[in-house]
Amino acid sequence: MQHQVQFQRLYYRSRKFAYRVEALKLPNGAEGEYAYIEHPGAGVVVPIAPDGRFVLVRQYRFAVGAYLLEFPAGTLEPGEDPDRTIARELEEETGYHAQQWQYLGAFFLCPGYSTEKIHAYLARNLTVLAVRPEGDEDEDLETVLYDRDQLEALLSGADPNALLDAKSIAAYHLAQRHL
Amino acid sequence: MQHQVQFQRLYYRSRKFAYRVEALKLPNGAEGEYAYIEHPGAGVVVPIAPDGRFVLVRQYRFAVGAYLLEFPAGTLEPGEDPDRTIARELEEETGYHAQQWQYLGAFFLCPGYSTEKIHAYLARNLTVLAVRPEGDEDEDLETVLYDRDQLEALLSGADPNALLDAKSIAAYHLAQRHL
Repeated sequence: MQHQVQFQRLYYRSRKFAYRVEALKLPNGAEGEYAYIEHPGAGVVVPIAPDGRFVLVRQYRFAVGAYLLEFPAGTLEPGEDPDRTIARELEEETGYHAQQWQYLGAFFLCPGYSTEKIHAYLARNLTVLAVRPEGDEDEDLETVLYDRDQLEALLSGADPNALLDAKSIAAYHLAQRHL
Repeated sequence: MQHQVQFQRLYYRSRKFAYRVEALKLPNGAEGEYAYIEHPGAGVVVPIAPDGRFVLVRQYRFAVGAYLLEFPAGTLEPGEDPDRTIARELEEETGYHAQQWQYLGAFFLCPGYSTEKIHAYLARNLTVLAVRPEGDEDEDLETVLYDRDQLEALLSGADPNALLDAKSIAAYHLAQRHL
């Protein structure tokens, strides 16, 4: 951290993150009021089913008012290791358990106004759980399987009507050199 | 929009976006309080200099307390077309004017808690402006040129110490089929 916090103007805690407004002095000397989301971080996974298809989830995103097709992901619980978070989220969101995990790297999701750092993984050797664990009660999820050509067409940007998200494109980009 | 807003609990406007907390009823019937950033949208550009190198900006991101290397990007002014936003931001952030623009597609940046949609572009035929326009006074920017091998190494996730951001990885991914 290379800036000074001068005072806090607003603090609001929601379920998964907090919203902060602070007066800051930046390293270049600029002073002002800055607003941002304080987020515990997250995990995202590119899961490959035994038949070679990729596992995605179609879910309603209230912020954008639409159903998006994304890789499974979830927010870290306080003090939780991202390896554990993402294994749990894969099971809750898709009903798959993965036996082989590979860490792909991390990226900031929207560093202009959020502290969120996402850890990305590749998962293989998936098996279907006999009993699917319960996830967040308000999650409205459907598992969708895409083969590699379908996935690459989706994430290429070629379809102007596709509703894409940065995390899923970035995670697939990091996975590419391991496929 | 497929959800109902039941009531608004908090509304806070910062310089570039607003923070909203609302009671919602989702399409699956779940009701609850949801917090999100209401954002006007943004543009990002993958600019290629005449020598074939890619133009990036190194900038301080107070939310993550670090300098990140990203593609030039900026927030839409109210009513502004993203084509205009991104041409302006490229000039302000790097001092380059681009004569050839290609639209790459759009993606949501963090649909879990922000309405932000980013429009991505590829820019070629860059010329250096004689006079660089003034940008936001608090921006602390340095232009950095990377050749394709350096850029691909950076965005591959291979260096665990690299500080990456989702928008830059995603924009490069969308640019790949045009390079």
